[in-house]
Amino acid sequence: MIVVMKPEATEEQINEVEEKLMDLGFSVHFSQGVDYTTLGAIGDKSGIDPRELEILNEGVAKVTEISEPYKLAGRDFHPRDSVIELGDVRIGGEQPVTMAGPCAIESEEQVEIIAKHVSAHGASVLRGGAFKPRTSPYSFQGLGEEGLKYMRKAADNHGLKMVTEVMGKTQVGLVSSYADILQIGARNMQNYNLLREVGKTNRPVLLKRGFSSTVEEFLMAAEYVMSEGNEEVILCERGIRTFSNETRFTLDLSVVPVIKDESHLPIIIDPSHSTGVRDKVIPMARAGIAAGADGMIVEVHHEPEKAKSDGPQSLRPGQFAELMDQVNRITETISNKPVVA
Amino acid sequence: MIVVMKPEATEEQINEVEEKLMDLGFSVHFSQGVDYTTLGAIGDKSGIDPRELEILNEGVAKVTEISEPYKLAGRDFHPRDSVIELGDVRIGGEQPVTMAGPCAIESEEQVEIIAKHVSAHGASVLRGGAFKPRTSPYSFQGLGEEGLKYMRKAADNHGLKMVTEVMGKTQVGLVSSYADILQIGARNMQNYNLLREVGKTNRPVLLKRGFSSTVEEFLMAAEYVMSEGNEEVILCERGIRTFSNETRFTLDLSVVPVIKDESHLPIIIDPSHSTGVRDKVIPMARAGIAAGADGMIVEVHHEPEKAKSDGPQSLRPGQFAELMDQVNRITETISNKPVVA
Amino acid sequence: MIVVMKPEATEEQINEVEEKLMDLGFSVHFSQGVDYTTLGAIGDKSGIDPRELEILNEGVAKVTEISEPYKLAGRDFHPRDSVIELGDVRIGGEQPVTMAGPCAIESEEQVEIIAKHVSAHGASVLRGGAFKPRTSPYSFQGLGEEGLKYMRKAADNHGLKMVTEVMGKTQVGLVSSYADILQIGARNMQNYNLLREVGKTNRPVLLKRGFSSTVEEFLMAAEYVMSEGNEEVILCERGIRTFSNETRFTLDLSVVPVIKDESHLPIIIDPSHSTGVRDKVIPMARAGIAAGADGMIVEVHHEPEKAKSDGPQSLRPGQFAELMDQVNRITETISNKPVVA
Amino acid sequence: MIVVMKPEATEEQINEVEEKLMDLGFSVHFSQGVDYTTLGAIGDKSGIDPRELEILNEGVAKVTEISEPYKLAGRDFHPRDSVIELGDVRIGGEQPVTMAGPCAIESEEQVEIIAKHVSAHGASVLRGGAFKPRTSPYSFQGLGEEGLKYMRKAADNHGLKMVTEVMGKTQVGLVSSYADILQIGARNMQNYNLLREVGKTNRPVLLKRGFSSTVEEFLMAAEYVMSEGNEEVILCERGIRTFSNETRFTLDLSVVPVIKDESHLPIIIDPSHSTGVRDKVIPMARAGIAAGADGMIVEVHHEPEKAKSDGPQSLRPGQFAELMDQVNRITETISNKPVVA
Repeated sequence: MIVVMKPEATEEQINEVEEKLMDLGFSVHFSQGVDYTTLGAIGDKSGIDPRELEILNEGVAKVTEISEPYKLAGRDFHPRDSVIELGDVRIGGEQPVTMAGPCAIESEEQVEIIAKHVSAHGASVLRGGAFKPRTSPYSFQGLGEEGLKYMRKAADNHGLKMVTEVMGKTQVGLVSSYADILQIGARNMQNYNLLREVGKTNRPVLLKRGFSSTVEEFLMAAEYVMSEGNEEVILCERGIRTFSNETRFTLDLSVVPVIKDESHLPIIIDPSHSTGVRDKVIPMARAGIAAGADGMIVEVHHEPEKAKSDGPQSLRPGQFAELMDQVNRITETISNKPVVA
Repeated sequence: MIVVMKPEATEEQINEVEEKLMDLGFSVHFSQGVDYTTLGAIGDKSGIDPRELEILNEGVAKVTEISEPYKLAGRDFHPRDSVIELGDVRIGGEQPVTMAGPCAIESEEQVEIIAKHVSAHGASVLRGGAFKPRTSPYSFQGLGEEGLKYMRKAADNHGLKMVTEVMGKTQVGLVSSYADILQIGARNMQNYNLLREVGKTNRPVLLKRGFSSTVEEFLMAAEYVMSEGNEEVILCERGIRTFSNETRFTLDLSVVPVIKDESHLPIIIDPSHSTGVRDKVIPMARAGIAAGADGMIVEVHHEPEKAKSDGPQSLRPGQFAELMDQVNRITETISNKPVVA
Repeated sequence: MIVVMKPEATEEQINEVEEKLMDLGFSVHFSQGVDYTTLGAIGDKSGIDPRELEILNEGVAKVTEISEPYKLAGRDFHPRDSVIELGDVRIGGEQPVTMAGPCAIESEEQVEIIAKHVSAHGASVLRGGAFKPRTSPYSFQGLGEEGLKYMRKAADNHGLKMVTEVMGKTQVGLVSSYADILQIGARNMQNYNLLREVGKTNRPVLLKRGFSSTVEEFLMAAEYVMSEGNEEVILCERGIRTFSNETRFTLDLSVVPVIKDESHLPIIIDPSHSTGVRDKVIPMARAGIAAGADGMIVEVHHEPEKAKSDGPQSLRPGQFAELMDQVNRITETISNKPVVA
Repeated sequence: MIVVMKPEATEEQINEVEEKLMDLGFSVHFSQGVDYTTLGAIGDKSGIDPRELEILNEGVAKVTEISEPYKLAGRDFHPRDSVIELGDVRIGGEQPVTMAGPCAIESEEQVEIIAKHVSAHGASVLRGGAFKPRTSPYSFQGLGEEGLKYMRKAADNHGLKMVTEVMGKTQVGLVSSYADILQIGARNMQNYNLLREVGKTNRPVLLKRGFSSTVEEFLMAAEYVMSEGNEEVILCERGIRTFSNETRFTLDLSVVPVIKDESHLPIIIDPSHSTGVRDKVIPMARAGIAAGADGMIVEVHHEPEKAKSDGPQSLRPGQFAELMDQVNRITETISNKPVVA
C-alpha cells in the first residue's frame, strides 16, 4: 500500500499515517517529492481496508494498493495458463471448446435430438438447465432431477461432457452426481455460500461473470472457489449491463485479453445471453473467438418456437452448423495452425 | 402486447403475426396508421416472451408490453400505500424510520453500546450482520448464531426491533428465530431459492436492490417473495454501479419517487454502502429523506477504527446524533407537520 | 508517478523503467517490498501519459499518478472555497442560489411573465435558451438574438441576473453582450474550442457536466476555461447516463460532496434535465439542496402544455413557489442559521 | 404513438387523452383490452414529446412511439445498404476498408513514413489529426493547417484517401480543402452547429459515436448531417463508457449488427481509442471485423515511444502488417469469398 499526502499536509498528519501503518504491522518507507510526500507500506498483509487510511486525516491525498487481492486466480504467482482437462476435452488449450445445447431441458427426446446435432458439428460439452433461475416467479422453473437424468443420458449417447447450473448450496451434491462441470449463474456470482460449496467438490466450475461485476470481483469470486481447494475454474463473459440496451446486455469482449493478462484461468464467452436474439448470436460468437476466447457456450434448439425458455436466442440447427464452420476457420486464422476436424 | 409492423411489411408477414398471437391465446385488434399497421393482443396472458414476436419475421418493427409483470408488488391493482407494522414501528407511514447499528456484530459489549446510543437518538430498528457476505474469502465472515444472540439481547434492552441479513436458504429458519426483519443483501436480490424461502415466513423482508438491477427486476424480486404469501416487503435503494466511481456506488435517489409511482411498497435508502465513506454518508442521508424515502438504514460504530468490517463508512456516535437531528427537521419541512420527538 | 513492478520482474526490466523515468526528466526513488519493487518518479512534470510506462515491459504491474491534473480547478493549491459575485448574487456562499425560468425563450410576453413569478419567489438568476441544442434537427431551435433581447429586458425588469447557453465559439461575443453568465451545455462540455473562447471573456461560466463525464474530466473542462484567465466557473450536475432509465438521466448527487473535496468551485444541481418530468423535479431539487449543493437551476413555465420545448419537465408557477419554500427551510436545517427572506 | 391507460383510469381521464391527441392533429383509434384501454394516435406527425401524454393525467400508464425519429438515416424508408465511394474505395461494400495512420500529424517525415507503410499493407485511407481535442489544455494540440498539408502530400504519394477531424464550425472550410473525409469526434457527436455545417459540404462524414450515446442518438446525429443534404455518413463505434474500466472504453461490438438492422449506413470500428493500449487493439480489431463491421480505423506509428499523443495505443508497423493479414483472412471466412490481395 502506498499513501500519498497532500502538499499542505502537516507533519502531525504524516506522523499519524506512519503510526497507523506501523500499528497495522507494516514497516514504512518514506519518499519526498517536489510537492507530495509518499509513504510506502512494506509487509505481506492482506485484508487491510484502504479507506481506513484515506479518511485517517485531511492530509491524505490518496491510497494505492500494490498487490492484487486474488492470490490463486491471479497470474502474478501462477504465470502459466491453466488447462482444464475432462477426458479428451481440454479447456484453455490451443483449440476453443464449444458447449452447446438447449436453454432448459424440456424432455428426454428434446435433449437427445439436440445433443446428437451439436455433437455432430463439433461441440464437446452439452449445456442445458434443469434448475432455471427466472426473473419471474410465474415462468417455467425447470424439470429438476428428471432433467439431469435425461441430460446425462443424451451426453453419454453422443460422447459429450455435461455442464449445468447449480442454483443453491443444497443442490451441489445432487447436481455433482450427474454433471461433469458445475455452472454458477451470473446472478449467483457473489453467492459466497454457493461458491464455497462448489469449491469443495472435485468438479470443474464454470463461473459466469455477474452482469455488473468488475474484473476484480470476477476473479475474487473465482478465488472463493479456489480457496476451498478446487482450482479448476472456467471463467465466462456473458455480457454486462450498460446504458446501451439494444441488446439484452453488452458483451464486453475486451475483457478477454484483459483476463488473459490478469489470470491464468481459461475464459469463454456466452453470445446467447448477452445478445438475447438469435440473429445477433452468430456475429458475436465469431467476434468472441476472434478476440481470443478459449471457447463459447451457446444455446441451440431444434424447435425454438416451442422452447419453454429463451427460444428467441436459441440458434436453429442449421445456424449452429454454419457458426461452427466459421468459428473453426477463424481459429485457424488466429492460431495459424490447421484446425483438427 | 402491441405489435407494430414496418411500413414495408407484407400481408403475409402481418398474417403470420396474427396467427401467432391467436396461437398464444390472444384475440387480435387491428389498427391501420399512415405508415404502420399495429396489432393489439387482447387477453390476460402472462409469461409470453415478447422477443418471440420481435423476431417472428422481417416485417415486425417493434413489440410493446402493456401491463407490468409485477401483479402483487405493483400499484396497478393495489393503489394504496402499504404500511408494515412491527409493534409501534410503522414502515411506510408518515414518519421515516431509522435502522441503525454496526456493520457486523463483533461482541456482546459492542452491540450493546451501539444499540443504546442509536435508540437514544431516535432509531427504532437495530441493524447488524451475523453472517457477512464479503468480497474476499480472506475477510472476517461474521460471528454466526452467537452474533444473533448478542444482537437480540441488545435490541430488547433498548426497545428496538432487529434486522439482519440471511445469506442462504438454509439459514432462514435460524435467523427468523432471532430477527424481526429478514434482510436480503444486494448480491442475493436474484437468488430465487432464497427469495422463495423468506416468502414462506411471517417476517417482513428488507430487500436490497441489486447494484445493477432495473426497477422492474427489483419489483420482480419482491414479487417472488410476495408470490409465496409474504406481502411485507420493504425495498431498499443502496446504490447502483455506474461509470462514476468516486463513491463506491451511485446512490440512485430518483428511484424513490419512481418506486412511489410504480409500487405500493415502502422504500428506504442506505447511504452507508452507497458512499463507502463516513463524511459522504450524512449529506446523502439527508438527500434521501428530502427525496421522500420512508426511512434509512445506516451504519454506526462507537470505535470505527477498530471495526472488523466497513469501519470507514460507519458514523461516529456524535455524527449519528447530528444526522438524526437534521433528518427530523427535513421531515418536518416536507410534511409540514410537527415531528413527534 | 509511482511504478509498481511485478514480483517476477527481472533486473533488466526494472532498469528499463528507471531509464525511461530519467529520460522523462524525473529523478527516481526505489522502494523494495516483500514481493514488489516500486519506483517513485520525483519531479514536477505534467503531460506524461502513464500508459507509456504501463506497457513499457512485462515486468510492470501498475502505474499510479500522484498529483491531480487540474491545477487551477483543484483544491490542492487553492484550499479556500471560491465565491462568484454578480452584484448582490453570491454563488458558492452561505445561501444556495436559484436560477429559474423557461427552457426556451418563446416570446417577449412569455419570459416577462415567468421572470416576474420566479423573482417574486426568490430566484436571483433568470434562465432560458435562445439557441437550443436539440436531439432532432426537426425540433424548435430557439429565437436567437431576438430571444436574448426579450430575456435581458425581463431580467432587468425584475432585478434578476441572466444565464443562457452559448452553443459555439462564434456565438460567444453576441451572447456575452446580453448575458451575465455563459452556460456551456452538457453536450459541449468537451468542446475545447468553445471552452477556450469563454475562458477569454470576463463572464462567469456555468459549466454543465457531460452526462458521461467523470469528475476528473469535469474538472479538466473547468481547467480549460480557467487556463485562459477566467477563473469564475460554476459547476452543474445535471444527471449521468446509467442503465437505470426510469428517469431521463440519473442525478448523481454524491458528486456534490465529492466536488466539495476535490475543488474550490461552487456546484449547483439541475433537477429538471436529469429527471425529465415535473413531478420528479421537486423531490430531487430538495435532495440536491439537502446534499449541500450551492444552488439549483430549474425550469418553470406558466403554461407548460404550450411550451415549445421540455414542457413536461417545467414546473408550474405554484409548484415553483412551494419548492422555494421547502428549499429555504431545508437550507435552514443544514446551516442551522436563519434564512434571509 | 400509442397511449396505454391504467386499469383504474376514469372515463374522464380517457377523454382528456383523446382530446389532447386530437388537438395535436391525430385521429384516434380505441382498443379495449381485458384490463387496459389503449388509444392509437394515427397521423404522420413528428416532434411530439411523448412525455406530454405520459404526465397528462393519473390514468395514463405508458406511451409508446411507433415510428423511429430518424427518417433519412433509418432503414424503414431506405432498405438497401448505402455504399460510399471515393474513387476506388468503397465503404459499406463487400470488403472492409482500413483507415490507418498516426494519432496526430507530427512532421512531414513522420506522416510520409507511416503512410507508405500502411498503404503497402492494404490500408486505403490515411488517418491523422491536425487539430487535436485533448482532455488537458496543457497537452499537444496539433500542427493545424501545416499538418493538413503534410498529410495531403503523404496520402497522394501513396494512393491513399485522407480522413481528419474537424473540431469546429469555423474549421470546416479549411479542412474540406484538404481532406477527402471529414471526421466528427466522439466529443462533438452532439455539437449540432458543427453537424449542420459538415452537412452542407460534399465530403463524406465519418461520425464517431459519443461514448455515452444510444443508438437512437447516434442515428439522430447522422440525421442532422443528412438533413442538410449530405447523405454520405460513415458511422464509427469507438467504445462506450461503462463501469468496466480495465480498458479506456468498452467497445460495444453488438452495435454492429444492431446498426445493420436499423440503418442503411456503413459502420466501422475503432479498436485504438476504445482499448487504449496496443496489445488489446489487435484482438478487438479482429473481433470487430468478425462481428461484421464495414472496416476499421486504427492508429499506427513507426516510433510510438516518441509519439506526441496516444503512443501507447498505436500499433507498431509489424503489428499492423500482421493484423491486416489476420483481418483479410477473417473477412474471407465470413464472406466465403476470396479476398482481393
